[in-house]
Amino acid sequence: MKNWVYSFGKGKAEGGGDSKEILGGKGAGLAAMTRIGLPVPAGFTISTETCDYFYKHGKKYPGELRGQVLKALTRLEKVTGKKLGDPKSPLLVSVRSGSARSMPGMMETILNLGLNDRSVAGLVAATGNERFAYDAYRRFVQMYSTVVVGLSKEHLEEKLRAMKTRQKVKEDTDVSAAGWKDLIAEYKAYFQSKTGHAFPDDPKEQLWGAIGAVIGSWMAEKAVTYRRVEKITGLLGTAVNVVQMVFGNTGDNSGTGVCFTRDPSTGEKIFYGDYLVNAQGEDVVAGIRTPMHLNEMATRMPQVYKQLDKVRGTLERHYRDMQDMEFTVEDGKLYMLQTRTGKRTPAAAFSMAVDMANEKLITREEAVQRIQPADIERLFYPVISAKTGKDGMAVKPIAQGINAVPGAAVGKVVFTAQEAEEWVARGEKVILVRRETSPEDVGGMAVAQGILTATGGKTSHAAVVARGWGKCCIVGCETLDVDSAAKIMRAGAETVREGDWITLDGGEGVVYLGQLPLGNPTMPKAYATLMKWADEIRRLRVRTNADTPQDARKAREMGAEGIGLCRTEHMFFTDFEQPEKSHERQRAIQEMILADNREDREKALGKLLPFQRRDFIGIFKAMDGFPVTIRLLDPPLHEFLPHEAGKQEELARELGISAEKVARRVEQLHEANPMLGHRGCRLAITYPEILEMQVRAIIEAAIECQNEKVKVLPEIMHPLTLDEKEMRILEEGTRRVADEILQKAGVKLPYLVGTMIELPRAALLAGKIARVAEFFSFGTNDLTQTTMGLSRDDAGRFLPDYVDEKKAGVFREDPFQSLDIEGVGMLMEWAVKQGRATRAKLKVGICGEHGGDAESVKFCHKLGLDYVSASPFRVPIARLAAAQAVIEGKQGKKKR
Amino acid sequence: MKNWVYSFGKGKAEGGGDSKEILGGKGAGLAAMTRIGLPVPAGFTISTETCDYFYKHGKKYPGELRGQVLKALTRLEKVTGKKLGDPKSPLLVSVRSGSARSMPGMMETILNLGLNDRSVAGLVAATGNERFAYDAYRRFVQMYSTVVVGLSKEHLEEKLRAMKTRQKVKEDTDVSAAGWKDLIAEYKAYFQSKTGHAFPDDPKEQLWGAIGAVIGSWMAEKAVTYRRVEKITGLLGTAVNVVQMVFGNTGDNSGTGVCFTRDPSTGEKIFYGDYLVNAQGEDVVAGIRTPMHLNEMATRMPQVYKQLDKVRGTLERHYRDMQDMEFTVEDGKLYMLQTRTGKRTPAAAFSMAVDMANEKLITREEAVQRIQPADIERLFYPVISAKTGKDGMAVKPIAQGINAVPGAAVGKVVFTAQEAEEWVARGEKVILVRRETSPEDVGGMAVAQGILTATGGKTSHAAVVARGWGKCCIVGCETLDVDSAAKIMRAGAETVREGDWITLDGGEGVVYLGQLPLGNPTMPKAYATLMKWADEIRRLRVRTNADTPQDARKAREMGAEGIGLCRTEHMFFTDFEQPEKSHERQRAIQEMILADNREDREKALGKLLPFQRRDFIGIFKAMDGFPVTIRLLDPPLHEFLPHEAGKQEELARELGISAEKVARRVEQLHEANPMLGHRGCRLAITYPEILEMQVRAIIEAAIECQNEKVKVLPEIMHPLTLDEKEMRILEEGTRRVADEILQKAGVKLPYLVGTMIELPRAALLAGKIARVAEFFSFGTNDLTQTTMGLSRDDAGRFLPDYVDEKKAGVFREDPFQSLDIEGVGMLMEWAVKQGRATRAKLKVGICGEHGGDAESVKFCHKLGLDYVSASPFRVPIARLAAAQAVIEGKQGKKKR
Repeated sequence: MKNWVYSFGKGKAEGGGDSKEILGGKGAGLAAMTRIGLPVPAGFTISTETCDYFYKHGKKYPGELRGQVLKALTRLEKVTGKKLGDPKSPLLVSVRSGSARSMPGMMETILNLGLNDRSVAGLVAATGNERFAYDAYRRFVQMYSTVVVGLSKEHLEEKLRAMKTRQKVKEDTDVSAAGWKDLIAEYKAYFQSKTGHAFPDDPKEQLWGAIGAVIGSWMAEKAVTYRRVEKITGLLGTAVNVVQMVFGNTGDNSGTGVCFTRDPSTGEKIFYGDYLVNAQGEDVVAGIRTPMHLNEMATRMPQVYKQLDKVRGTLERHYRDMQDMEFTVEDGKLYMLQTRTGKRTPAAAFSMAVDMANEKLITREEAVQRIQPADIERLFYPVISAKTGKDGMAVKPIAQGINAVPGAAVGKVVFTAQEAEEWVARGEKVILVRRETSPEDVGGMAVAQGILTATGGKTSHAAVVARGWGKCCIVGCETLDVDSAAKIMRAGAETVREGDWITLDGGEGVVYLGQLPLGNPTMPKAYATLMKWADEIRRLRVRTNADTPQDARKAREMGAEGIGLCRTEHMFFTDFEQPEKSHERQRAIQEMILADNREDREKALGKLLPFQRRDFIGIFKAMDGFPVTIRLLDPPLHEFLPHEAGKQEELARELGISAEKVARRVEQLHEANPMLGHRGCRLAITYPEILEMQVRAIIEAAIECQNEKVKVLPEIMHPLTLDEKEMRILEEGTRRVADEILQKAGVKLPYLVGTMIELPRAALLAGKIARVAEFFSFGTNDLTQTTMGLSRDDAGRFLPDYVDEKKAGVFREDPFQSLDIEGVGMLMEWAVKQGRATRAKLKVGICGEHGGDAESVKFCHKLGLDYVSASPFRVPIARLAAAQAVIEGKQGKKKR
Repeated sequence: MKNWVYSFGKGKAEGGGDSKEILGGKGAGLAAMTRIGLPVPAGFTISTETCDYFYKHGKKYPGELRGQVLKALTRLEKVTGKKLGDPKSPLLVSVRSGSARSMPGMMETILNLGLNDRSVAGLVAATGNERFAYDAYRRFVQMYSTVVVGLSKEHLEEKLRAMKTRQKVKEDTDVSAAGWKDLIAEYKAYFQSKTGHAFPDDPKEQLWGAIGAVIGSWMAEKAVTYRRVEKITGLLGTAVNVVQMVFGNTGDNSGTGVCFTRDPSTGEKIFYGDYLVNAQGEDVVAGIRTPMHLNEMATRMPQVYKQLDKVRGTLERHYRDMQDMEFTVEDGKLYMLQTRTGKRTPAAAFSMAVDMANEKLITREEAVQRIQPADIERLFYPVISAKTGKDGMAVKPIAQGINAVPGAAVGKVVFTAQEAEEWVARGEKVILVRRETSPEDVGGMAVAQGILTATGGKTSHAAVVARGWGKCCIVGCETLDVDSAAKIMRAGAETVREGDWITLDGGEGVVYLGQLPLGNPTMPKAYATLMKWADEIRRLRVRTNADTPQDARKAREMGAEGIGLCRTEHMFFTDFEQPEKSHERQRAIQEMILADNREDREKALGKLLPFQRRDFIGIFKAMDGFPVTIRLLDPPLHEFLPHEAGKQEELARELGISAEKVARRVEQLHEANPMLGHRGCRLAITYPEILEMQVRAIIEAAIECQNEKVKVLPEIMHPLTLDEKEMRILEEGTRRVADEILQKAGVKLPYLVGTMIELPRAALLAGKIARVAEFFSFGTNDLTQTTMGLSRDDAGRFLPDYVDEKKAGVFREDPFQSLDIEGVGMLMEWAVKQGRATRAKLKVGICGEHGGDAESVKFCHKLGLDYVSASPFRVPIARLAAAQAVIEGKQGKKKR
């Protein structure tokens, strides 16, 4: 017979004991604490498997459940010497949820169960406190009515307020027993009127009602949403913990508290917590009275404090991690009600992990595993430090978008990149708001405090560019109606005009109207230590995606070991070192595109050459001794031309051609699906002169750097290839130019020629392409787009439904965020295998956005990739994940 | 030592003898005819391998070549008893090209080689005809100067004309020996002045010059272009045939002719050909004099005719196919100069194949293999029957596009679909000219005679839709500048206005300004016989892509065994049976798209239900007893809404909503890459009510048909799936609706639920998807787009370079035309294997455009697919190719 119910009490606990999967976090903690001899009230746990069974069998319990619960109840009555519903010495229990992962406040709890008109007398007798007993009874009726039956909480609260008014008292604590009795009667009458039957007096009926409510709450909308948002999957369900009630509210020798074995904010090894005298747990949560700090408790209740401090040590040694504990003191006696691994700030996570490793409580590998990727990310970004504006001004949220890049930003709204640059030039701080951004906007994006777009997902242009800079960015804010021409945006009823202040919370994706104060997180000392440990463990190299010398330097600071993706197209828009030259660059590329023949194109490209060369020199210097992978021109040419008539005319005037010609060229370049159009290496096939100019710039820059004793390792990368012959044309074109320059200069310089693998066909034919390519770099953004037939710019319309567990729930995560291992991963695995079969020393990396996603990095480690490349601010995440992958790999091997 | 040269003569021929690959077609024919004892002048053939070596070694001949040529020449001199350059009995030779595939007129020929001022005397002596000898000499000098050295042909012709004027004669035949001598001197002086050296007198120097010219002509632009256009690949090069000259122009007992063993126009078994008295081959080609028919020759030269007729029988028996022969009669003696398999009209191809099989000359399988897919296609389409317009009006080509659908069409130009419908309603014939077409245009496309677009490739919307109807269509006519608003198009200097007549030649992709007469090809009786044989051989079923009852009926006529793809979206635009209802349909779908909530959407869908049901009833009836695969809604919704402000306002007025709302919805639905956007089954995931309405229409129609004793086999197909869970949601939604209707009706009806495989991820995860899907249908259009990252609407800009052998030459063929077996094919193979591993009886077909491409059909046969689905007019191609695949499979097995 399957066991659905696990009892604990008097130093013994049934079953596996601390299996969180089966008992839930709370149940496992209670069982464990019981077994290691800590003071825990007795009780039993209905397993998560019961919940699983329930939902898999048309909401029916397993047949054996009733018998097992009754048996466990009998045992509980024996251990406690009390009986449920007993008019003399009634057993009261709490019924609480508890799944394997903490979901605070998401599921239901019923306290004081077992009270009825008869047993309440026993509670009066046992405590000698009628007011207390009827208060407990009233609380139970209220909770049961709302939680189990779903009656209106507001309505019941209203009755309470009315009663207090009648009784002319202010605080609940001032209500007399009679008052509570009246209220109970009122509640019950209301219950009868709403449900058509009497409030259940039978404690067993109450118990089953409560069990049903807890299990039912597992599928309540808020719980489902929480799991989705927190990406909690794979759980069986919630357990139900039925535990003898202990009361912290029986007088001043009682109380309840929450404590942490270390400071969850700083990680410091101090005993940290709060204690509230004469109170029940819910009072602490309600935050009505101010609790005392544990230090004060040490003075006031030295005995209990000492006992608690001992428990602290026992639990931390047992769990080998910081614990978050709940306890109650009933008439001077300590009861531990819960223990779980405590949540902590990112800074505390680092400090504790390093401290515990130094204390030998855990190993360094365990310390590395204790850090979550999100901890690192949050460590670097500014945060909103208060939710009220300057001078106490009201600041209100006006829109919710996708949290593309965390952090926070405050600035005045501008609607065009050009205005952003102008406003910043005169000393303003701006937030650039666009429907969507394009490469033309990069200059304005660079100077803005933050970026907000109405469309796009986490890998849209805005998101990718902003992430590269660690710049706060919210995208896909679909409720925004952005009218750049009119210089306004509408967000629901609000109209925001150019120059209005807004604040972006990039971590939450919330847009506030007004100015909120920002603060910088402090960097814990432990960060450097822990990352050093991670670096010692990992095998995978970590590079960065960087397009400018500035980015390259930043990435080096973040620990990047080279550049995995240097996109050359941004260089055609913006001169990051001499912004006044940006216009000249843009004109040159535009002139190239508008040229009618190769000769004119070459002339225009000649103007770009010195710019590109200068950029490459800066980048090579920043990456002295590390490899730099440079991707040749990738985006479709229409992205470089203005689409608005006014700007087209301006361009035409400057180039001395007709506006009609510009318009015609733009029209010619228009594509139905630019993502699948004339871009990538297809441009180099059509216009070899572009390839030639770029290779020239790279090699000339490399020679110049080498002459200055900078160690240069250029890797020239062709985007969007799909065939061996195509790759051979590109490779030959590249080598012809490069070798000629090197020969003329009489210089030896090692360089590699390779390709992105970003089309399914390239992955499928990787074995052949590797005959020519010396390295592969998976462009998993585009590979995801093509493999799944998903445009990342458009997927915002339906992808949320695909990720939403309550809707289609097809994907566990947005495949643009975390690699689709099942599909795209299969292609990658094939490509690595085939590529290496052809060329054993083929260098393989990844440079899509996934290079900064921990799960994806771990997959890359498993595939045997040589490196991952992430945006500068995600480099530490990749370093950590790469180390964790090694550790998990070892554990996996051990398990097998 | 490798053999580069093969001699033949006096009944013997060296080497493999009839290997076309090594000797070229002409050389192989000469060798074979020599060996079977036919009268052939002696000579030798320099192999195609020599040409291959030449181009692979920086244009150098193999070292052994010179020696081998000289040896072969010596042998030739021995056999003929004449010597090259001999002043008494000179050997004269022709030097001709000849590759393994016929490339008529593409490469060079030099005749009468061996003549110089001394040897011409020998020719005079041998023939006793000075005029003839000097004419031959003059022809040689002229040919050598133009062909070998590249002097201007016009210039030399000019000198000839001037000489004739001086001599006061009109015809070449009237020129005296002295005249020719003068001209030779003039030619030689011109040669000296242009080249700086004297005309070569040494016959061996002449010979090497001629050999070089022939080999050089292999890579001449026109030859390369021809091979590209004709998709001739894999050849080694051209052979060079050096053959003793025989003269048909020595008098009235001489002559030259061309004949066919059967009539190449009709296929009739009659001896067909022309003979020209006292003439050389070039005179026949020049068409100056009218030749006599062979019948006349039979009377005039009965002996020679009899001999020739015998040769005819011998060669047809030898080659087991109709031969195209060239011969010369020199002083009453017959010489065979060439034999090759003759080109024939499509109708003749069928007739001959069937006749020969019935004569037991070939087997039925061979007969099936004799038919080319293009033969079938050309059989059905009207053709331009003369290149002058009505009443002799000049008609000129004004543009060249991509020949998307063959046939021809004449009509007045209109620039919008609406105008097309209006003009046709008042009795006009129109050609619809658009920049590109969209589903909105389908109504106008349906009534137009032909369709012409400025953009797109062979699988663009216009091409696909037109092909489905067998309607003449030219796409990608990039030189056209179409201005729909102004109702004009510009083609170079020409401006074509609305209402102007144009003629489309869909076979050649040429647009003519004016009206050309059209004729209908006649259907040979043999067609039905041969297709029956093919049907008996093939394993693969052939279905059709058809969206209307009309198309379905047409497809049945063409031999379709069911529908493999019924696209439901066209039904939302056009009511093909009651055109006046089209508007109602459009409004209903637009209302659905503009609705704010599910309820309103369902209301609008309710209006569409009866239309869809009626369409399905018509289709089911047309396909009585055959399966019908219906694809649920696929295109993105924006395609159903008007994009022009005027039309948006009209729509808004009719629906009683604001034009702004329509515009906003259009804007909302706009996508950067609609191909990868919110379409296919993603629509059904977002709006399950669309799926429900469509399934209802299908099942209700099926029940109605079944009640009328029509055998219905519906297969409901979900487009663009990529995941098992997604497929499960769709499948469950489909079955829920279908089963409920069937249960209510108390009817049993077998139906299948399956999916398109048109995304790489679907192919990769086919094993999992097959857990749910009962059938797969490869949508190879989209699978090609995503696998290769190629938008078929945009690829026109660069794909030509990728297919052009002289440019990148990455692909052998346009992958939208003929399946990319290497890449896309790999995914298909994997999907079939994985899918069948999960579900052994998984039905698998293909419904992309490739289902009508012979090579692709053969690949599908090899993969073990159950069926291919082609547009109605391509059904016979698929039937034939499927049979040929079986035969080729057997041959492949035998070879192994």
